[in-house]
Amino acid sequence: MRVNDRKENQLRTITIETGYTKHPEGSVLITVGDTKVICNASIEDRVPPFMRGSGKGWITAEYSMLPRATEQRNIRESSKGKVSGRTMEIQRLIGRSLRAVVDLGKIGERTIWVDCDVIQADGGTRTASITGAFVAVVLAFGTLMERKVINRLPIKDYLVATSVGVLPNGKEVLDLQYEEDAKAQVDMNIVMTGNGQFVEIQGTGEEATFSYLQLQTMLDLASQGLQEIVALQKEALGELANHIEVNLLGENR
Amino acid sequence: MRVNDRKENQLRTITIETGYTKHPEGSVLITVGDTKVICNASIEDRVPPFMRGSGKGWITAEYSMLPRATEQRNIRESSKGKVSGRTMEIQRLIGRSLRAVVDLGKIGERTIWVDCDVIQADGGTRTASITGAFVAVVLAFGTLMERKVINRLPIKDYLVATSVGVLPNGKEVLDLQYEEDAKAQVDMNIVMTGNGQFVEIQGTGEEATFSYLQLQTMLDLASQGLQEIVALQKEALGELANHIEVNLLGENR
Amino acid sequence: MRVNDRKENQLRTITIETGYTKHPEGSVLITVGDTKVICNASIEDRVPPFMRGSGKGWITAEYSMLPRATEQRNIRESSKGKVSGRTMEIQRLIGRSLRAVVDLGKIGERTIWVDCDVIQADGGTRTASITGAFVAVVLAFGTLMERKVINRLPIKDYLVATSVGVLPNGKEVLDLQYEEDAKAQVDMNIVMTGNGQFVEIQGTGEEATFSYLQLQTMLDLASQGLQEIVALQKEALGELANHIEVNLLGENR
Amino acid sequence: MRVNDRKENQLRTITIETGYTKHPEGSVLITVGDTKVICNASIEDRVPPFMRGSGKGWITAEYSMLPRATEQRNIRESSKGKVSGRTMEIQRLIGRSLRAVVDLGKIGERTIWVDCDVIQADGGTRTASITGAFVAVVLAFGTLMERKVINRLPIKDYLVATSVGVLPNGKEVLDLQYEEDAKAQVDMNIVMTGNGQFVEIQGTGEEATFSYLQLQTMLDLASQGLQEIVALQKEALGELANHIEVNLLGENR
Amino acid sequence: MRVNDRKENQLRTITIETGYTKHPEGSVLITVGDTKVICNASIEDRVPPFMRGSGKGWITAEYSMLPRATEQRNIRESSKGKVSGRTMEIQRLIGRSLRAVVDLGKIGERTIWVDCDVIQADGGTRTASITGAFVAVVLAFGTLMERKVINRLPIKDYLVATSVGVLPNGKEVLDLQYEEDAKAQVDMNIVMTGNGQFVEIQGTGEEATFSYLQLQTMLDLASQGLQEIVALQKEALGELANHIEVNLLGENR
Amino acid sequence: MRVNDRKENQLRTITIETGYTKHPEGSVLITVGDTKVICNASIEDRVPPFMRGSGKGWITAEYSMLPRATEQRNIRESSKGKVSGRTMEIQRLIGRSLRAVVDLGKIGERTIWVDCDVIQADGGTRTASITGAFVAVVLAFGTLMERKVINRLPIKDYLVATSVGVLPNGKEVLDLQYEEDAKAQVDMNIVMTGNGQFVEIQGTGEEATFSYLQLQTMLDLASQGLQEIVALQKEALGELANHIEVNLLGENR
Repeated sequence: MRVNDRKENQLRTITIETGYTKHPEGSVLITVGDTKVICNASIEDRVPPFMRGSGKGWITAEYSMLPRATEQRNIRESSKGKVSGRTMEIQRLIGRSLRAVVDLGKIGERTIWVDCDVIQADGGTRTASITGAFVAVVLAFGTLMERKVINRLPIKDYLVATSVGVLPNGKEVLDLQYEEDAKAQVDMNIVMTGNGQFVEIQGTGEEATFSYLQLQTMLDLASQGLQEIVALQKEALGELANHIEVNLLGENR
Repeated sequence: MRVNDRKENQLRTITIETGYTKHPEGSVLITVGDTKVICNASIEDRVPPFMRGSGKGWITAEYSMLPRATEQRNIRESSKGKVSGRTMEIQRLIGRSLRAVVDLGKIGERTIWVDCDVIQADGGTRTASITGAFVAVVLAFGTLMERKVINRLPIKDYLVATSVGVLPNGKEVLDLQYEEDAKAQVDMNIVMTGNGQFVEIQGTGEEATFSYLQLQTMLDLASQGLQEIVALQKEALGELANHIEVNLLGENR
Repeated sequence: MRVNDRKENQLRTITIETGYTKHPEGSVLITVGDTKVICNASIEDRVPPFMRGSGKGWITAEYSMLPRATEQRNIRESSKGKVSGRTMEIQRLIGRSLRAVVDLGKIGERTIWVDCDVIQADGGTRTASITGAFVAVVLAFGTLMERKVINRLPIKDYLVATSVGVLPNGKEVLDLQYEEDAKAQVDMNIVMTGNGQFVEIQGTGEEATFSYLQLQTMLDLASQGLQEIVALQKEALGELANHIEVNLLGENR
Repeated sequence: MRVNDRKENQLRTITIETGYTKHPEGSVLITVGDTKVICNASIEDRVPPFMRGSGKGWITAEYSMLPRATEQRNIRESSKGKVSGRTMEIQRLIGRSLRAVVDLGKIGERTIWVDCDVIQADGGTRTASITGAFVAVVLAFGTLMERKVINRLPIKDYLVATSVGVLPNGKEVLDLQYEEDAKAQVDMNIVMTGNGQFVEIQGTGEEATFSYLQLQTMLDLASQGLQEIVALQKEALGELANHIEVNLLGENR
Repeated sequence: MRVNDRKENQLRTITIETGYTKHPEGSVLITVGDTKVICNASIEDRVPPFMRGSGKGWITAEYSMLPRATEQRNIRESSKGKVSGRTMEIQRLIGRSLRAVVDLGKIGERTIWVDCDVIQADGGTRTASITGAFVAVVLAFGTLMERKVINRLPIKDYLVATSVGVLPNGKEVLDLQYEEDAKAQVDMNIVMTGNGQFVEIQGTGEEATFSYLQLQTMLDLASQGLQEIVALQKEALGELANHIEVNLLGENR
Repeated sequence: MRVNDRKENQLRTITIETGYTKHPEGSVLITVGDTKVICNASIEDRVPPFMRGSGKGWITAEYSMLPRATEQRNIRESSKGKVSGRTMEIQRLIGRSLRAVVDLGKIGERTIWVDCDVIQADGGTRTASITGAFVAVVLAFGTLMERKVINRLPIKDYLVATSVGVLPNGKEVLDLQYEEDAKAQVDMNIVMTGNGQFVEIQGTGEEATFSYLQLQTMLDLASQGLQEIVALQKEALGELANHIEVNLLGENR
């Protein structure tokens, strides 16, 4: 049996609170079990130098944990004077994932800054960040629509993420919490769109390996879980979900 | 008249939520109007090299703002690779203030790490941090008492902080919110103990000066406001407030 | 048709030169088409602090490109004073992959430092680094055997890596060279063991997505290509390949 | 009794040597007892980016100590690669104080760089720096007047600074030297204008607190001492003091 | 006798391989005994800010060693986050030396970036770098001539470098390998032009000194050795050597 | 004619003031014309890790310029967060030179920290630093003798330095001041012992070269000038000069 009596294919309780802080164009607090992440999307009216004159926008993400988001206190990266490899990997992943579903050609030369700050960590912080960041970004575009800067949501599809893995007993499971994650043989993060296309697959065996069959089982678990998360995003987005629906219909016509 | 119809000597609404996150020995969310700060106190069972062998403990504080805690997004200090002068000033102030009321000789060779992370900023973040950090530190010592590591609260008195200032119209006011702070001629932060002793006074005229009389008026405003905040701390601390009371009686006997 | 008339499932020419420089315990020059990487393995007789007293060894990898390994000159990371996110990701990947096939419990408290320095880049530098680094690490253990420090190769299986991807025309292909990689919709790096287990899968759609079917086709291409690369590693390792064979027989008995 | 038989309200011997080095527009060596600081003011014909187009000037200060200015040698901040929190606090204080008495609107888009380098330290280096820096800045404006760049001194009033504190015996004293400062219960730095207005008050109890009465006594001591220092500045400035007098008369008319 | 039975005035075997990697405008692998350095010259169509508008070009050099180029592995400078004093000295020396023979006024506002990366070190890496870098730079200008960007080689003379020193037995020798260099009393690097003019002399006694007579002997040894190296450069440059010959005739007419 | 009517072989006026600041074990202010350098020698009772257990001492030097020591203000290296290549070269040169005349085997495991801080620069700051640093180091050893830590001066000979160069008119000259140095074709720094042995020769042609004959003339000029400087050091050292004399007699017996 899993911790907290969860079934192999069972997600933890997920909540998505919109409008969490007042300054950002889009602000979300996402909780996945005991993992809590503030996802803020900010809009800047220019792009980085390498994109100037392209007529296109850009999305960049930053990720951080409060020092005591974890069981043991971590040294603050600003104090160390450099960002760890793990942090860089995660923020590159978040940014790249979001760029797969945002139509950057439709937002003009603007940068969307996405800040994911982990308040409390219990496994799955990077996938919670992606799921929450998507909602924050849509909210930020909603703000741009209210301000009449754009008149359509530049969103091609929903974007959701979760983790799957193989426990020491050989069982494949969905949405690992920290206690499971720390002992897992295989750890895999999956980012998908609302209609089931892959955006990212990152599977890793730390001092272990996995078979093709195990891979398939994990992908199936992820696939099911991610549909549930899309439903929660729709609910959180309210009226804005209808705008995404319109875009999806357009794409599929 | 002040913003939001506040009177000169009127504090903003202050709330102190204890047990805000699960990992730290002491965790608090303090809100002062729209300013929101997470204050976490962590206990480490050793002291920095310069204190080893002294038999005494140490308190050190770190302060940070989420990039979009403010109206405009700030560059993350971990990305810049260095901590700003402003941040250093604030974290030195928080640590020094706490050391004035904690009996470091009673906690053994332990370090109390205090992390103040501003989620949303609307003026007064450093004083809110001090007020919240005091509660988090007391909670952390409460945890040490539960674990039978210490058997008395090593706290000499309450510690509270607020700002006072002079508005462009020449009026002295208590607890400036951002809109007031940005235009103030004089900005002063006062840290006091529960029985009205000063711990820190930092008064600054940016491109302006102030008279002895103005100083006195500001100190009076601060003095009154700080008594109200002590009452809120007592309420938040519940049972632990009684332990502080015992210490205070002991001191005054 | 692909660049240079390659077929979808055709690797570029790969060569592995052992004993490339004289100082390291294991030294390899690997070429994959026009990509050239020096892989050196160095042995240090101690482990990082977090592993001391564990009785186990550690493997860590560093990756770098000469500034003019690429078409445009890159600024040297030592001049910038920090290592890029891309570099960190790659060196974490190399180290993690090697740890999956090395029996760290059999090498005592030693660190294997693996340095992958790209002399010339034409796509696939990270996977060439892993393939070459494996050979360099086995050579370094061979040196330890000659020095009678260990008496068996602490190697569980071969380790090989390659890239697969989806070209703009929708075709899945094996082993992308730079010209293909720069335009690909999907880019996937696969690290496998000699007996076909996955060690790492990292698939990414930059501003694009991919289907389950495309994933399967790419995994098949990788699987075939990687068996060819194992054969080249065996040849390069000469006598040491027999020692690995012995270990594999032992594992499968 | 105090060290060196000083009375509570007695300053150490102060000298201000103008024209100390030949390159800066204004150069001063100030000695306060055994504390010696070189204060140089340099003029640059542009302002930092955040002030461009404002038509106003800017003043910024840097502070440093020679490694062996102190009893024990300190590591050079350039070797450590970062500036300490203490240094940042001091240089922000110096810059802010000077901006309170310089009429930045009258100097065009110019930056005044003030460098305070402590040659020998014996307590009170930051207040000596402010007192000396004021003279260096006036000299630099004198140079601008000679060069016919400006035709009036853009100085609103004198600027002086000193420290006061509470010794372990509970006595309030003026101008602490290092031996006193190291043991003081309370340390307070006061920056004032020539006509007795406050520019900065920074009072700190390190592991101690102070009462309202003690505060008043310290402010009185500072007030008297600062008038003596103004007299020394006047003497050092010679003819330029008359220009300040003219401005003061203008202000008070 | 010297290591490897070399005579006092005998160089190690030197080879210069041109066109070593494909991307740079000029690429060379130079070997001096067991010392191996890749020298790449890259051309950028602009100059650093301090030279803009001058109509002249610039040459800058960077030097690095692979971590395991040496007997003991060195920490990568990019990991340390800063470049060592030794590296800085060497790259300043290479750049300065090249600027003495390149006619910067004839190349327009272009920067020549010279990268010297030591693959294997056995003493004399900085002088091998200079000798190899000169060839790489001429090759790069050859590329500019092919591209019709310039129509003459902007080269005033050959540039060669070697080391001389005094062994513990008091003998002056040419071209020290590592084993000799590590024990030498005096270490001297000489950079000369093809016609025997000095460009740089850097002679150092580490915990030792040397006489005028020893200096003369060392200069003589260097002078002879350097002529041999010029011959090897001519051979490596092939047709381009004729262009240099033309320039030399022009200069001497 | 030279600037200030100096003859080719004429030094600027040199003064050496001992006991310049009170804290260091040895403290000197040296002036060479308008160049002014504070040289402080500090003694620490331990050596760097690489020398522990050797029974020998170590000397290390640091060099810095006040930002406005020069005509144009330089950015402080502590603000830039890194030390320039020029600074590193100079501090390595100073340390290496001093180690040539100090008998490190006679001082136990102690480190002599030498700080050379340029207060005012007018050419020749590095050679003035060496000349002054030698005196400061001898003074520091004098302090150790007074404290009965050592009973003999561990000094093998005097150490002096100066610059020579070739002016644009082709004339070789001694002791270049800034105005000459900035235009010189060749710039050479010579460090010698009291009895005329070379410690360091660093000759450089920036975009120029020099002949063997020019080298000889420059060495002669340096040789004469350095004897005059030795005489000034003797005078500054007073009684301590006799101790050096004793050592020199011992060496030459």
